[in-house]
Amino acid sequence: MSERRTVLRAAALGGVGLGLSAATPAAAATGRGPRIAILLYDGLTALDAVGPYEVLSRVPDASVFTVAKRAGQLRTDTGVLGLVADRSLRQVGHADVLLIPGAGNRGVIAAMDDAETLDWVRRIHRRTTWTTSVCTGALILGAAGLLTGVPATTYWASRTYLRDTFGAVLTEGRFVESGKIITAAGVSAGIDMALHLAAKLAGDRVAQALQLAVEYDPAPPFDTGSPDKAGPELQALALQLLEAAAR
Amino acid sequence: MSERRTVLRAAALGGVGLGLSAATPAAAATGRGPRIAILLYDGLTALDAVGPYEVLSRVPDASVFTVAKRAGQLRTDTGVLGLVADRSLRQVGHADVLLIPGAGNRGVIAAMDDAETLDWVRRIHRRTTWTTSVCTGALILGAAGLLTGVPATTYWASRTYLRDTFGAVLTEGRFVESGKIITAAGVSAGIDMALHLAAKLAGDRVAQALQLAVEYDPAPPFDTGSPDKAGPELQALALQLLEAAAR
Repeated sequence: MSERRTVLRAAALGGVGLGLSAATPAAAATGRGPRIAILLYDGLTALDAVGPYEVLSRVPDASVFTVAKRAGQLRTDTGVLGLVADRSLRQVGHADVLLIPGAGNRGVIAAMDDAETLDWVRRIHRRTTWTTSVCTGALILGAAGLLTGVPATTYWASRTYLRDTFGAVLTEGRFVESGKIITAAGVSAGIDMALHLAAKLAGDRVAQALQLAVEYDPAPPFDTGSPDKAGPELQALALQLLEAAAR
Repeated sequence: MSERRTVLRAAALGGVGLGLSAATPAAAATGRGPRIAILLYDGLTALDAVGPYEVLSRVPDASVFTVAKRAGQLRTDTGVLGLVADRSLRQVGHADVLLIPGAGNRGVIAAMDDAETLDWVRRIHRRTTWTTSVCTGALILGAAGLLTGVPATTYWASRTYLRDTFGAVLTEGRFVESGKIITAAGVSAGIDMALHLAAKLAGDRVAQALQLAVEYDPAPPFDTGSPDKAGPELQALALQLLEAAAR
């Protein structure tokens, strides 16, 4: 087996291997880079968190960690996937970057109603360099009082709610940067936002390399990814499918 | 709080709420739909699994579940994210769809060397409707002997290895369908493949609605998501960043 590993490594160095080893590894994380907190909570939408995680966890010297009310396992909105939060809210007093993923109705309402979560978000936000959300995560920023009069976006089906309930200024875009707050549109938009954020943290070259690292050269087989392109019937069907799979 | 929930629900029905409730929920999962197994293993790349999961878990009547050598927590390639496998290999004797995510060097080599995993993959594959991989997950299909002479793709930096080691016929594309085997390119390509697979399982309309459900209307801030577009310097930097973040 060691022989095989050696072959793989040598092959990789020769450019014909797995290709996942670098000839000259970058410096190991030094603790000098940005501390990036990803808030997890019961009922979250996994891709909202994991898309940005996949990009941001490779920003040089960054330390990414997950945090939730209580450390340990929690379930996503469909109930069929478990994620692990490594730290509790009480264990995290500072982050340079805060990322808040969205959730379905149940998860996001519970988070919006949770005073401990909202207090923590406000406290962490005071000293962040960037405070960010994906999808309905913006409603949690809104509930924390951080989006009043702020240009922002959210999940396509929650835009009116965000404006009417929290006074955000609805703005078009896959993500909207307003001062140090960046809100992304729904679910997969977190990947686009994370590449933008990686460029802010480490420069365009690193962000461009990270786009290649996750081979993000999208080619969806359909072109129905926005409500305008999809039209009202697919909008209704999308909401039905989300509801049917919700736990 | 119950008042607030009621307001949200009523607002949603009126089209100005969270928008995540449907007026007429689809039928609950009946157990008649496809059984979709997502293989997890230590060191996997989270987005390889979570991208497809987010789409496939909303296919009507589908039951999606995670499976690993041992049920319980495992860590991803960066070490900073934990996922939960709900079933062990021994608990899963059949799946209609098998999805194998990729990993970094360490994780994929360990999986390729693991006889129990490869035996299980071969056994499940015999009766699947679709056997699929994302990224270097194709190397695990290759190690199981399922890609000899089969048109396939994998992570951009592992393509030559896949061909030279397992005899796959390298084929261009975000995903490659060869009989009942579908292999996707790197990491984020799993989302594109999952939409294609959702169309196979439930028809184009459902797949189109699921694209909207995850608001997959990609707009990356750069255009460096393929090795050709990125060029050799960004390729080297991408591999460096992956290596530096690998645990």
